[in-house]
Amino acid sequence: MGRATDRRSVLRIDLDATGEGRGRIRRQDTLAAEEPLEIRVGAAGPGRRRPLAVTMRTPGDDLDLAIGFLLTEGLIRSAEDVHTAQLCAGAETPNTYNVVDVALTPGVPEPVTDPSRNFYTTSSCGVCGKASIESVRTRSRFAVRDDPLVVTAELLAALPDRLRAAQRAFDRTGGLHAAGLFTADGEMVVLREDVGRHNAVDKVIGWAAREGRLPLAGHVLLVSGRASFELTQKAWMAGVPLLAAVSAPSTLAVELAEEAGMTLVGFLRGPTMNVYTGAARIGG
Amino acid sequence: MGRATDRRSVLRIDLDATGEGRGRIRRQDTLAAEEPLEIRVGAAGPGRRRPLAVTMRTPGDDLDLAIGFLLTEGLIRSAEDVHTAQLCAGAETPNTYNVVDVALTPGVPEPVTDPSRNFYTTSSCGVCGKASIESVRTRSRFAVRDDPLVVTAELLAALPDRLRAAQRAFDRTGGLHAAGLFTADGEMVVLREDVGRHNAVDKVIGWAAREGRLPLAGHVLLVSGRASFELTQKAWMAGVPLLAAVSAPSTLAVELAEEAGMTLVGFLRGPTMNVYTGAARIGG
Repeated sequence: MGRATDRRSVLRIDLDATGEGRGRIRRQDTLAAEEPLEIRVGAAGPGRRRPLAVTMRTPGDDLDLAIGFLLTEGLIRSAEDVHTAQLCAGAETPNTYNVVDVALTPGVPEPVTDPSRNFYTTSSCGVCGKASIESVRTRSRFAVRDDPLVVTAELLAALPDRLRAAQRAFDRTGGLHAAGLFTADGEMVVLREDVGRHNAVDKVIGWAAREGRLPLAGHVLLVSGRASFELTQKAWMAGVPLLAAVSAPSTLAVELAEEAGMTLVGFLRGPTMNVYTGAARIGG
Repeated sequence: MGRATDRRSVLRIDLDATGEGRGRIRRQDTLAAEEPLEIRVGAAGPGRRRPLAVTMRTPGDDLDLAIGFLLTEGLIRSAEDVHTAQLCAGAETPNTYNVVDVALTPGVPEPVTDPSRNFYTTSSCGVCGKASIESVRTRSRFAVRDDPLVVTAELLAALPDRLRAAQRAFDRTGGLHAAGLFTADGEMVVLREDVGRHNAVDKVIGWAAREGRLPLAGHVLLVSGRASFELTQKAWMAGVPLLAAVSAPSTLAVELAEEAGMTLVGFLRGPTMNVYTGAARIGG
């Protein structure tokens, strides 16, 4: 199985350095690992299941990633819809375990793969933003609008430091996105990291699904980067009432959060933050 | 047609502020626009062309985005393979022009959409990293290994400031990725911005294809974020010999750059940088 980081030889150049070699040093550097993961889905049984999607991800928590992906794409409703999920060998030698094989519980419909539509299409939206926002609302099982969560701005302001403190790989590579799930008291429930920010969120949600914790009512989901439409959609699919991002949200993320009744906080940095939607959940 | 940015009402909280309202100010904030773009491709003529992919993008330069996407995915070989490309209306009212319709030049094969494979699969790789790296090498028309480009570390160090100075939207939203194409003398040829970093690169490459500038031999491509496998692949598809990133590369990006004979620079910040592959192109 792959590792989350790997070491490579790198030429480090520092133009401000003086003396011999003009600041050129050959050294070992730690990089974030990126490898493809193929997700296969189908009915339980001995037959070969069909490839549904490939995502470029950082190895680790691959079963959570697959289950979170299926759940946030609306292809399964809960972890109970999964009969078995196992990490298997790809075609490679040496074996790198880059395939997750998901057998669905009998009665759960297999995903329809429309030849004229790719998966990314399904994942984001159809022809236009409006239509997709509508379709997400009908697909999400969980209403977050009436979630009574209230947190203080002080509590929110403390979360990014807790996320960073808990990140195992970030300081060494600078290349991983993080997603952290927190309780209303600011306690970190779970942290996941990945080269892909969508994967980090899917890993968190897949873990929560397997733990029987969905919907994530009363929780805060914090992401280390920006808040896109897709991350907001994933949060909604898991029933998260408050999504906070260290960086900027997009217009469509704000529109979707408004539609969902979700609180969306951006630029959560030190003592300052921007509340784009659902400000009633930010107390004193 | 959509705009690159939009303004929204936001509650700004500053916990360090004193006095009335405890640092809570309702104000207008500029956000990076994110909207879906559907790319339809097929034979020229009056028939309806098939949807191939939807990408969440910042509106603007949509024809370049579509052409760059088709080119870096290996579905067309040059801009001559495109008979016409036009921005058309989606199903929405009011009309938001979120569809690009691409009619292929007679004789150019239509993309095969395999029902058991989604487009993202095709775009990233097959079952495993090795296989995908092999397939990219056979698909790219351009050899970059023997590109004689040499640039000084001083010249590279100056590029991020030029990129930022040229960015129109970044300072206002903090939410846009940038990709800039530079000559060996450090002159900026073109800059594109997008909520999606892949889109910013596709917009640059699509523009270059339409201008008849491919392969981009002797050029430097600078991206404002990280260097992933996919960005490295796109750079190779356009014949770029030097890819520089402000942030970290992934392991697979480094492996692909090595395979291609491309120079990959990461953490290009102020006077320091890391050269992961192809250090011979970085002179004095």
